[in-house]
Amino acid sequence: MPRYALMIEYDGSPFQGWQRQAAGQPSVQAAIEAALARLQPGPHTIAAAGRTDAGVHATGQVAHCDLDRDWQPYRLAEALNAHLRPLPVAVVACARVGSDFHARFSARERRYLFRLVVRRAPVTHDRGRVWQVRHRLDAGAMRQAAGYLIGQHDFTTFRSVQCQAASPVKTLDQIVIEELAYPAGVELRFDLRARSFLHNQVRSIVGTLERVGAGAWPPEAVQAALAARSRAACGPVCPPQGLYLAGVGYPRDPFA
Amino acid sequence: MPRYALMIEYDGSPFQGWQRQAAGQPSVQAAIEAALARLQPGPHTIAAAGRTDAGVHATGQVAHCDLDRDWQPYRLAEALNAHLRPLPVAVVACARVGSDFHARFSARERRYLFRLVVRRAPVTHDRGRVWQVRHRLDAGAMRQAAGYLIGQHDFTTFRSVQCQAASPVKTLDQIVIEELAYPAGVELRFDLRARSFLHNQVRSIVGTLERVGAGAWPPEAVQAALAARSRAACGPVCPPQGLYLAGVGYPRDPFA
Repeated sequence: MPRYALMIEYDGSPFQGWQRQAAGQPSVQAAIEAALARLQPGPHTIAAAGRTDAGVHATGQVAHCDLDRDWQPYRLAEALNAHLRPLPVAVVACARVGSDFHARFSARERRYLFRLVVRRAPVTHDRGRVWQVRHRLDAGAMRQAAGYLIGQHDFTTFRSVQCQAASPVKTLDQIVIEELAYPAGVELRFDLRARSFLHNQVRSIVGTLERVGAGAWPPEAVQAALAARSRAACGPVCPPQGLYLAGVGYPRDPFA
Repeated sequence: MPRYALMIEYDGSPFQGWQRQAAGQPSVQAAIEAALARLQPGPHTIAAAGRTDAGVHATGQVAHCDLDRDWQPYRLAEALNAHLRPLPVAVVACARVGSDFHARFSARERRYLFRLVVRRAPVTHDRGRVWQVRHRLDAGAMRQAAGYLIGQHDFTTFRSVQCQAASPVKTLDQIVIEELAYPAGVELRFDLRARSFLHNQVRSIVGTLERVGAGAWPPEAVQAALAARSRAACGPVCPPQGLYLAGVGYPRDPFA
């Protein structure tokens, strides 16, 4: 049974997240499984590298599916995109992979982007695609605080109480905070990389770093919060609409 | 009576264009006039530098208004933005100007941006904000063709039959075509500058240049189309959603 890896881009706004929900609740997974069922009678169950929450976007989600027929990967992507219309979900790359490839379990790295816009006037073009705050943020202080989180730690503080991961110990390989020009404001872009993330980890980290940038927390308080290993020590979890699953790394890039 | 210049950003998708329409038809002008009426009993009639069509966006539209009261420009922008919610319209800059300032008649330059995305998979995040085509475009050929349009010409070919300008003669100062990386594709950005534009001029030009990029027209055909001074010689007018009024130039920048 041929297996295919799909690189998927989506606007998370209209969805209750990646994962299939009870009937009638829109999810990205259900949308793609329904498109697959138009190509081959289902049911289909696809696995993805990251289970994004409601309102979270993706530019580089990866999932895999098994089909009876041999498809030219290009044709499969075109057919799925035709059946996904008019939903804001698109298969941007498709590749035939071996049966040992698993979008979730073969992944060695997840990359997330978080977009935070600082300006007074409400955002218009990027509504639902960035988190907006109206006060200045000190990017230097945020970078200092972020530095305490790099490496292997018990991230209990930065983990949803609903998180189902077996262990709260994760290795955060990178948090880069870039300042970009934005019309009538500034955009902060957070690029995070890790083998895997806990549930709500990125939004817990960005929400806490925002408090540092605003001057409400000294940078060292983030180190103390991490050491506390207590969910109560976390800052506010920031909203989902600035978050993008930007890419997934595999031992061999299936799309190369 | 104090006069204020407003720099306005909007997502044109939900509007029938800038200009006030019959009751019940949403327009950006009516939205701002309604917000002004919340600050001071109306009616208010504001003038803008560019009357954008339905679905066309702005990042730097400029309008002016007259109010009885002296407002701190910063407070006026905040108050208008509060009353504009939840519409995707924002006042991003506000300045007190002299009574001789007129947003439309004082303007010496208009700048438009057109975003064209070339890729197979449907766009998701930028839906309604770019024009997408699925075939390759030759940017070099488009640049050659664009060169024929620079300078002072009779632009009858590139003008809507509904255009109300007194003369079809305009001076196009710039068309820069930039190629940018875009996920799973390429983005072409057209930056156009002129003292003023005819109705549908930008969309007529971009739609015609697209035909050149696709190989359907040789670049020299654009020179011939211009010389024909006939609307029938124009290529297809491209859709509005890739177009942005990006800025307006005045002898003295009111927002500096």
